Amino acid sequence: MKVGDTHYRSIWYDSDKAKTMIIDQRWLPHEFRVVELDTLDEFATAIRDMWVRGAPLIGATAAYGIAVEMQRDASDKALDAAWELLHETRPTAINLRWALDEMRQALGGLSEGDRPAAAFRKAEEICDADVETNRLIGVHGLEIIRKIAATKKPGEPVNILTHCNAGWLATVDWGTATSPMYHAVKDGIEIHVWVDETRPRNQGAQLTSWEMNSHGIPHHLVVDNAGGHLMQHGMVDVVIVGTDRTTATGDVCNKIGTYLKALAAHDNNVPFYVALPSSTIDWTVEDGVREIPIEERNDREVTHVFGRLEDGTVTSVQISPDGTPGGNPAFDVTPARLVTGLITERGVAEASREGLLGLFPERRSAA
Amino acid sequence: MKVGDTHYRSIWYDSDKAKTMIIDQRWLPHEFRVVELDTLDEFATAIRDMWVRGAPLIGATAAYGIAVEMQRDASDKALDAAWELLHETRPTAINLRWALDEMRQALGGLSEGDRPAAAFRKAEEICDADVETNRLIGVHGLEIIRKIAATKKPGEPVNILTHCNAGWLATVDWGTATSPMYHAVKDGIEIHVWVDETRPRNQGAQLTSWEMNSHGIPHHLVVDNAGGHLMQHGMVDVVIVGTDRTTATGDVCNKIGTYLKALAAHDNNVPFYVALPSSTIDWTVEDGVREIPIEERNDREVTHVFGRLEDGTVTSVQISPDGTPGGNPAFDVTPARLVTGLITERGVAEASREGLLGLFPERRSAA
Repeated sequence: MKVGDTHYRSIWYDSDKAKTMIIDQRWLPHEFRVVELDTLDEFATAIRDMWVRGAPLIGATAAYGIAVEMQRDASDKALDAAWELLHETRPTAINLRWALDEMRQALGGLSEGDRPAAAFRKAEEICDADVETNRLIGVHGLEIIRKIAATKKPGEPVNILTHCNAGWLATVDWGTATSPMYHAVKDGIEIHVWVDETRPRNQGAQLTSWEMNSHGIPHHLVVDNAGGHLMQHGMVDVVIVGTDRTTATGDVCNKIGTYLKALAAHDNNVPFYVALPSSTIDWTVEDGVREIPIEERNDREVTHVFGRLEDGTVTSVQISPDGTPGGNPAFDVTPARLVTGLITERGVAEASREGLLGLFPERRSAA
Repeated sequence: MKVGDTHYRSIWYDSDKAKTMIIDQRWLPHEFRVVELDTLDEFATAIRDMWVRGAPLIGATAAYGIAVEMQRDASDKALDAAWELLHETRPTAINLRWALDEMRQALGGLSEGDRPAAAFRKAEEICDADVETNRLIGVHGLEIIRKIAATKKPGEPVNILTHCNAGWLATVDWGTATSPMYHAVKDGIEIHVWVDETRPRNQGAQLTSWEMNSHGIPHHLVVDNAGGHLMQHGMVDVVIVGTDRTTATGDVCNKIGTYLKALAAHDNNVPFYVALPSSTIDWTVEDGVREIPIEERNDREVTHVFGRLEDGTVTSVQISPDGTPGGNPAFDVTPARLVTGLITERGVAEASREGLLGLFPERRSAA
């Protein structure tokens, strides 16, 4: 999407330089740094140390990592070693493994001479497919926003609340939860976005705010505590969030705190939508709260906050007393009963087994 | 309560020094600074600049401010001027006005010669009355914790979640929401406290964590997003919070985010209690969500976070991009239907008009 007047993807191949370029997201929102990745090790570092993050973008980055390695050494041995090295960078990311397998499958049957060009083509294909999936999520989600806009007086924006960053920075372009918003803006619909800060890692404050700012979308940053009050007072028309994993029954595992917003939306009759590429549906899971293991992360994320000093230095401050331990569950599960609908690349489904199977009938036999 | 091995109140008269002492809370949790207040202007500054905060403590501080001024000049003119100066420091604090009026009433009929000693006696009375009120809240709240403890296996603590700081630092001693916890510890009941960070001002991280730490109570600091997940997984036995204002019908206006925790408690059958001195009941308000105006504070509290650098410097960092505005509602209202009970100095009431009038029958004719 736009950064000022320029349209960016979160990863791209610069054919003039013959280099893969990414946005080093560690410095956002304080600095916009575009860097080139030259070697397999650099790709591995970029994924491991979260220069890039977000499941789709991690997958795309790994695909280009394989391609770059194939230019250096296109042997089976190099391909396997690159698969292993990249896979270890974020072992729990499902999309990472998927993208690496796609690459290996595309290259396995080719001669070493054909592999480099084929690898770059395939990496580009993976990126383009992600963009198209997210575009379609936006097209379907736009209809939801359009209907709300039709109930507004002229000049009154549609107020959308979102949590975490399910934005273009987490994908190759458009984002998932943000795609309907970008489509609405493109369509001339006035929107205003309440951006949840999203402690502990502040992806809302750091990334979603930056996206909104960069694209010129009216927004306010709010603390995670504020959403319930806003909904009680009619200041939120719709909630749209992303998801890391969706169960076959429509439960949604997303960034910690999503469940609290879903409860508030339900209590105030505010529609609560979850935007997702169908690749995040885990058809093997029935009960999200009971079955999905929740990652417990380092408590330094809770006791410390990252930001910029007045002199421009980017650093962390400790907010709690020495000796106080932190608890840091990274995700929570929102039961399907609190979800108004799931916005996928094939359309909007009810958050239920029947709803999902209606859009993905090919899963019916498997279920 | 205890800071290490020493028992402190948040304000006290040191008779050796003949000075009023407070804890300068601006430096917590990073430094524990006790300071003496010598002049009326210093008392006004301490209240205005939030060296002390919390409605009961603000009232107590103002009372001692009047007493100190009476030592210097016990005239009617000085009394009125002191009332005005102190009242302007935090004009919306109901307890501040109440304490100032108590002082003026106690001193009005006395000769100038009698006023200084009477003023110190009255200030001490106000402090002691606050301590007694909070002690009684603790005695009644203890019974709730004791019943839960009886269902636990040996060695299993009662898990209590709290939001913001309704602790002894906000009162003269015991606190409101924390008083049942301190009483439980005193009684030998094992507890563990989940401390909500409480963005944007982080009173949980800065003050409640510090209280728990200083008193040796097992606790974990969690982000405000985490409570719903903890409740879904049976990790919270009871929620106890404070309130800034309680309606005649049992709605509770407390720090922003309280409503979200009440929703989660309700959804998971976790009892949700609110601890309050009856002075916070506003008998004129019926519908908290509609009638209570919510203060919108400076958005710098949202875009910046206060903490300690590694070198020990206490400062703020900006967490959001330049150009992103913040929304900062300071309180929200939890409807009575989500509140299991109100813990007052007279006992535990159902959160309803009938429940409150049962404990405060003298209000029945007025209602």
